Amino acid sequence: MSDKTARPENSPDHLHGHSETSACCQFMRPVMDQIRHNPGADIIRYGRRVPNVLALGTGETDTPTPEFITRPVADALTAGHTFYGPILGRTDLRQTIAEYYKSIYGVNLSLDRVIVTASGTSAIHLSLTSILEKGDEVVAILPLWKNLLGAIRLAQAETHGVDLHLSADGKEWTLDLNEVFAAVTPKTRAIVINTPNNPTGWVMQEDDMRAIMDFARSRGLWVVSDEVYGRLVYGEKRAPSFLDVAKPDDKLFIVNSFSKNWAMTGWRLGWLIAPAAAEQRIYDLVLYDNMGPPNFLQFGAIAALKDGEHFLEEQKTRFRANRDIVCAALSGIKGMHYAAPQSSFYVFFKMDGEPDCMAFAKRLIDDHALGLAPGCSFGRNYEGFMRLCYAVSEPLLRDALDRLGAALR
Amino acid sequence: MSDKTARPENSPDHLHGHSETSACCQFMRPVMDQIRHNPGADIIRYGRRVPNVLALGTGETDTPTPEFITRPVADALTAGHTFYGPILGRTDLRQTIAEYYKSIYGVNLSLDRVIVTASGTSAIHLSLTSILEKGDEVVAILPLWKNLLGAIRLAQAETHGVDLHLSADGKEWTLDLNEVFAAVTPKTRAIVINTPNNPTGWVMQEDDMRAIMDFARSRGLWVVSDEVYGRLVYGEKRAPSFLDVAKPDDKLFIVNSFSKNWAMTGWRLGWLIAPAAAEQRIYDLVLYDNMGPPNFLQFGAIAALKDGEHFLEEQKTRFRANRDIVCAALSGIKGMHYAAPQSSFYVFFKMDGEPDCMAFAKRLIDDHALGLAPGCSFGRNYEGFMRLCYAVSEPLLRDALDRLGAALR
Repeated sequence: MSDKTARPENSPDHLHGHSETSACCQFMRPVMDQIRHNPGADIIRYGRRVPNVLALGTGETDTPTPEFITRPVADALTAGHTFYGPILGRTDLRQTIAEYYKSIYGVNLSLDRVIVTASGTSAIHLSLTSILEKGDEVVAILPLWKNLLGAIRLAQAETHGVDLHLSADGKEWTLDLNEVFAAVTPKTRAIVINTPNNPTGWVMQEDDMRAIMDFARSRGLWVVSDEVYGRLVYGEKRAPSFLDVAKPDDKLFIVNSFSKNWAMTGWRLGWLIAPAAAEQRIYDLVLYDNMGPPNFLQFGAIAALKDGEHFLEEQKTRFRANRDIVCAALSGIKGMHYAAPQSSFYVFFKMDGEPDCMAFAKRLIDDHALGLAPGCSFGRNYEGFMRLCYAVSEPLLRDALDRLGAALR
Repeated sequence: MSDKTARPENSPDHLHGHSETSACCQFMRPVMDQIRHNPGADIIRYGRRVPNVLALGTGETDTPTPEFITRPVADALTAGHTFYGPILGRTDLRQTIAEYYKSIYGVNLSLDRVIVTASGTSAIHLSLTSILEKGDEVVAILPLWKNLLGAIRLAQAETHGVDLHLSADGKEWTLDLNEVFAAVTPKTRAIVINTPNNPTGWVMQEDDMRAIMDFARSRGLWVVSDEVYGRLVYGEKRAPSFLDVAKPDDKLFIVNSFSKNWAMTGWRLGWLIAPAAAEQRIYDLVLYDNMGPPNFLQFGAIAALKDGEHFLEEQKTRFRANRDIVCAALSGIKGMHYAAPQSSFYVFFKMDGEPDCMAFAKRLIDDHALGLAPGCSFGRNYEGFMRLCYAVSEPLLRDALDRLGAALR
């Protein structure tokens, strides 16, 4: 957590690792040079060169989408639902998402607040693109998935990161709200939060959410809350949501996705909860961005929300057992620092003597055929960290932990 | 074609129909106010209020995707191809697109020039977003689908339109290349062309393409060529393509889509041909935009390209017969002006005494339950025009033409 400077988190020189201007600037627009180099993506591609690499660097389970979700898509194809669908998603899916929030979160959402998007990433991109202008600032709680940091940069805004702190006993990640408030300047346009957090498993609690929402409201700021892991919290039905503390017309975007809960990563379907006043604006934006999500895929998404609770519980049970296996293994390694994750399916760890995550990640691939995600993907202060996704079958996970142990011996 | 001014084609006041600043500018970023109001989309929604409206305002056939394309998707779902796919598309699909260009166009494309996108609109958005900066200018040949004009505006660039001309005998649309070259200023960054053209069916010929490519190369400009209707040209296997006249490293984006050729509008799959030097940049951009196209859908796209020629020929035969039915009907209406389309599945017509396309479009819906697209969607000089999509079954088309005839009686 040292070496914190006043440089924006997603400044070009940080993202580049160099500051010279390349020849690309005549080729494409300047910001294209500023979004280069995604260390996580680089390592995934580095790993693909190695046959049979055990890839736990990507955030997905090894379970294919279950049949109760795929069958409605095959049926919809047979029934000819292959024409243009509504720009903001099928009404039946928007209705189902609203019912899901009523059932699981106890929140009433009018349909004009519910937007289906072509991936959770698209929901992030659309929300940020609708509010951020060149020169705007964003306060973001770190560590944060690099693709969110990159999406802010693509919108030509600067990220001022506020780091979570790993407690002295190494048992939990904590946030100092005063650091969040202090990072806001007159140029700040939005506070970006991912809770439950990828990669730490940290979960923001309702009191902190209320404090942030109240602060944002008083300053006219947007809150963008990525709640993709909101159901993958251990021992609870769901994590707190900003919807618990917000008014319907608050400047609040909730980003969500079908990917993680229901093993639907390859589907590229997500959703956005927005104030009703944003609906028409997002509609305009989607017209010129991607013209909306695929039509017949949405029948699978409806099945996931309506009939997916049992599957989700099974997944959580498996992830929790895997979490315990991972923690047992890591606690046996001297010099290992991590907090047992309370949610998601990642462990974010720091190993004494391994300060350079990129070098460590490459060594794991080259010498042990093990792919993990480098911590520098999540913010500049996490170069000593690595992320392991444990959403895989137990034998695979035990194999990976053996390889990691061997690398650290 | 009159009333041409120096105002940019996609200036906010043109798009708004008004120039006052609305309260939204504190709510979202300023450009969100500038992309408002899409007359084509407005009319489609206006039509949805009317039960059983005969909707020929949307650009799609009434044929569902054929079974030889849908079956591979159902099979891929069963086989568990539900995980994250490659950001720029599956290698097997990229390979198939390259083979398709070799087979149909006689053009050799290296795989690093072929990018699969989550819709043709996404291909447009990604190409424009990668090159256009606020204040840049684009020269665009009009009429042009509003979603392309809006995508340019979303990129904060200004469109300088160059109109096609309807010949004095009303038989064909023509382009004066000198008008294109004269519209270029030091701020111009790209020339945007849709050929074959939606809505006129005009097809740019190879000599004109060569002249534009040579000019663009000499000025360092990009050419963005939307060739989505490239196969739907009557009496030819395919229309000329900018790939016929370009060098591999020219600043050229070709936008294409599976939607129109193979009745796959609801799939949201397209592709982009780019110079190899752009591949990594588009990859970076897609990471922060939508993380790439759905995985298992691409098996259907492979089938469309490999086994879709017979279906495409059938569709073209039907469209051509429909074209002749439309032209026969229109030629019987006094005061009607149109050129018989050489490609695509639209007729773009102008009726004496109907100068206001929005009023006419609403009257057709309200009084005759017929939905057509208003000409003002395609540029400011087309307010007297309407677009009819004739890619539907013959009885439906004859019914629509009867309704149109009744409205004009």
